[in-house]
Amino acid sequence: MSEYKTFSSDDAMAFADAHSELFGDHSKLTAEEFGDGNLNLVFRVENDKGTSLIVKQALPYARCVGESWPLTTDRARIEAEVLKLHRRFCPEHTVDVRYFDPVACAILMEDLDDYRILRAELNDGKKFNHFAPQLARYMANTLFYTSDFVLSSENKKAEVARFLNPELCLITEDLFFTDPYCNHERNNIEPSVLEKAKTLWHDDALKAEVAALKADFLSKPQALLHGDLHSGSVFINSDNCKVIDAEFGFFGPIGFDVGSLLGNLLLNYLACPGLHDEEACNDQQAYLLEQAEQLWQQFSETFSELMSRETQDPALESNLYQQRFLQRVFSDAAGYAGCELIRRTVGLAHVADIDSISDAGERATCQRLTIKLGRELIMQRNDLSNISQLLNLVRYQQPD
Amino acid sequence: MSEYKTFSSDDAMAFADAHSELFGDHSKLTAEEFGDGNLNLVFRVENDKGTSLIVKQALPYARCVGESWPLTTDRARIEAEVLKLHRRFCPEHTVDVRYFDPVACAILMEDLDDYRILRAELNDGKKFNHFAPQLARYMANTLFYTSDFVLSSENKKAEVARFLNPELCLITEDLFFTDPYCNHERNNIEPSVLEKAKTLWHDDALKAEVAALKADFLSKPQALLHGDLHSGSVFINSDNCKVIDAEFGFFGPIGFDVGSLLGNLLLNYLACPGLHDEEACNDQQAYLLEQAEQLWQQFSETFSELMSRETQDPALESNLYQQRFLQRVFSDAAGYAGCELIRRTVGLAHVADIDSISDAGERATCQRLTIKLGRELIMQRNDLSNISQLLNLVRYQQPD
Repeated sequence: MSEYKTFSSDDAMAFADAHSELFGDHSKLTAEEFGDGNLNLVFRVENDKGTSLIVKQALPYARCVGESWPLTTDRARIEAEVLKLHRRFCPEHTVDVRYFDPVACAILMEDLDDYRILRAELNDGKKFNHFAPQLARYMANTLFYTSDFVLSSENKKAEVARFLNPELCLITEDLFFTDPYCNHERNNIEPSVLEKAKTLWHDDALKAEVAALKADFLSKPQALLHGDLHSGSVFINSDNCKVIDAEFGFFGPIGFDVGSLLGNLLLNYLACPGLHDEEACNDQQAYLLEQAEQLWQQFSETFSELMSRETQDPALESNLYQQRFLQRVFSDAAGYAGCELIRRTVGLAHVADIDSISDAGERATCQRLTIKLGRELIMQRNDLSNISQLLNLVRYQQPD
Repeated sequence: MSEYKTFSSDDAMAFADAHSELFGDHSKLTAEEFGDGNLNLVFRVENDKGTSLIVKQALPYARCVGESWPLTTDRARIEAEVLKLHRRFCPEHTVDVRYFDPVACAILMEDLDDYRILRAELNDGKKFNHFAPQLARYMANTLFYTSDFVLSSENKKAEVARFLNPELCLITEDLFFTDPYCNHERNNIEPSVLEKAKTLWHDDALKAEVAALKADFLSKPQALLHGDLHSGSVFINSDNCKVIDAEFGFFGPIGFDVGSLLGNLLLNYLACPGLHDEEACNDQQAYLLEQAEQLWQQFSETFSELMSRETQDPALESNLYQQRFLQRVFSDAAGYAGCELIRRTVGLAHVADIDSISDAGERATCQRLTIKLGRELIMQRNDLSNISQLLNLVRYQQPD
C-alpha cells in the first residue's frame, strides 16, 4: 500500500492474511467491523476454523465531541511500538502486536475474544483476584525497564524522542489538568453537580497542586507510560489480564499510570451504591479496596526488587534514594488518581461506572463524593505515607 | 564545503570572509589560532582596519584527559542553536553567533576582544557590580522563555528533541554525579585531601541526595539550559557580561544553571584566603557574597515577574504554584552548587581559583572546606529557605 486509505472489510482481510501465517492456506476469511468508529476502525478477521486476529486502523480524525477534528495517525505507530516494548518486559499482560503498517496506520494483533473489558466486569460486579497482582506486575516491569534505572542516558534520550507523542499528550494535558479547573466549554457537568464543580474553579490551593501535577506530566520523563491505563484499557478473563490501547504512550511520571488505574478502581468504588444493592455494594467495595491495596503493594514490592537487583546506573543504586523515589511515585499516583476522579465527573470524558447509575439523585451523590475525594487525594498526596492511609481516606468518605 | 576537514588559518579566513559583510571589500585578513586546541580550534580573524570576528570549529575528538577520545561535532550545532535561542531572549548578555556551518562544524561569532573571562577577573580580585544582575537577567530570561510557562507542549517536546545532546550530557552525568562519589580513575584528588574525599564514597545519606540530583538532571527538562555556566563561560568588561560556550546545552532542571554559577562564586570565595592577603581576602569575600545574593535575588525577582506576566499555560498561572516552583529551583540550585564544589576538588576538572593557590597547605585547607560546604549544600538544600540562609552557611564555615 503506497498511501493511506480507510480499510474496508476486504482490505482488513487482505491485510491480516498478508501479515500472518495464522490463517494457513488462505482458507475462507470473514471480517466484521465492531469498533465504535470514532477514532479507529476495528475488525475481527476470522477463518472458517475459528482462528481470528484483530485489525485496528487509526482514522485521521476523531468524532468523539460531536464534530470531527483531525488527529494524527502517528498514534498507531506509538501504540504498536509501546505495546511491543511493554510486551518485551511483560509478555503475559500485554496484547501481542503481530504487525504494524506505517502507511495504512494499521495494527494486526491477537484477538482477545475470550476476554472482556475490565470496566464492564467491574460494573457487573464480577470479582477476579488476579487482576491487581497482574497489573501491578505489568506496571512494575514496563515502567522500571524503560526508566533511568536501566536505560543508558543516551538510549533513554533517543527513546524519549521516539515517543514524544505531542498530539495525544495535549489531549490529556487539557482534559486532565486544565478544563475541570475552569469554566471550559469542553466540560461535561451534570446540572446537579454544577455548584460543586464551580468550587474547583476558585480553589487556589487545589489549582496550585494541579499545576504541579501538570508540570510533572509535561516535564518528568521517568519511564515509557501506557498513558491511558484505565479499566477500559484492560482485558480480563478468568485467569489473565492483558493491556491494550497504548496510543497515549509517552515518557512521563510513573505515578501517572499507577494513579490512573487506582483512580478507576476508586471510581468504581464510589459508584457501587448506585450500581448494586446494599449487600452486593459492601462486597464489591471490600473487594475493590483489597485489589487497590494489592495493586500498590505488589507494584511497590516488584519495583523495589527490580531497583535493588537490576539498576544499571551506579549513581542510582542508593537504597535510600530508591525508597524515596518509590515514596514519591506513591504521592504522584495519589495525586493523579485524584485528577482522574475529578476529570471523570467534571471533564469531557465520563465513565460508565457512574453514568450508568440510573437514579439521578444517587448519581449526583456519587459525583459529589468523587469530586470531594479527588480533591482530598490531590491535596493530601504528600502526607499520605502508605496505601492504607490512602484507602482510609476512601473508606471514611462522607457526603458534604 | 562538502565534508568536514580541520581548518587551517586560511580556511578560517575564507570562512569568516564568506559569511560576514563585516570585512567589506575583502580587505587584507589575518587569522590567529589562540584556543587551547583540546576540543576546538579558535581563530581570531581580523582585517587591516582592526575589525575582527571569531571562528570556532569543533574537533572530532577531545584531548583533555591525556589521550584523545571521539566526541561528536554535533556539539557545534548545539552551541550555535542554544546561543541563537538564548540571544533571542537576552541579546545583551549572549554572544552573537553570525553563522553556523553544519558540515565544517564551525561557528562565526562576534569577537569579545575588549572582554576578559570572568574567572580570571575574579582570581585577580577585580570587582564589577554589574555581573550578578546581568547574569541573573540572562538566566531568568533564557530559562523562563524556554520553559513550560511559555512554550506550547508541542513546541516544547520538539525543542527537547532538538537539544537531546546525549554525548555532552553524559560527560556531566559522569563528572558531576558519579565519579566524585566513588573511587573512579577519572578523579583528580590531591593526596592531602584523599582521606576527606574517601568519606564521600561511603556517605550513604549524601549519595541518596546526589542520586536525586542526578535523576533530575536526567529527567527534568524544565528549560533549555546553558549547561556549563561556570565563570569560565562568561566574558566581562567594565560595563557588560556576555555568555559563551553553550555546547552542553540541553533541556534540564533550571537549578542546574543557577547552581553552577553560584557554585563558581563560592569556589572563588573559598579560594580567597589562598589567593589574597587578609584585607584583600575580606574585601573579595564580602564582594562575592553580595554578588551571590544579588544573583539569586534578581534572578528570582525577574523570573517571578515573568511568570506572573508572561505565562501562556492557564493551568500554570497559579501564583501559589509559581512561588513553590521558584522555591524548588532554589533548593535545586543549592544542591547543584554543592555538586559543583565537590566535583571541582575531587573530580576530573578543577578550577584555577583553587589550583592557583601556590601554598600546598592552604590549598588543602581550601579543598577540604570546599568538600565540606559542598556536602552541606547538598544535604541541606531543602531546608534552606532563602539565599541569606545559604550564604550564612558559607560565611560560617569552619575547617573540620
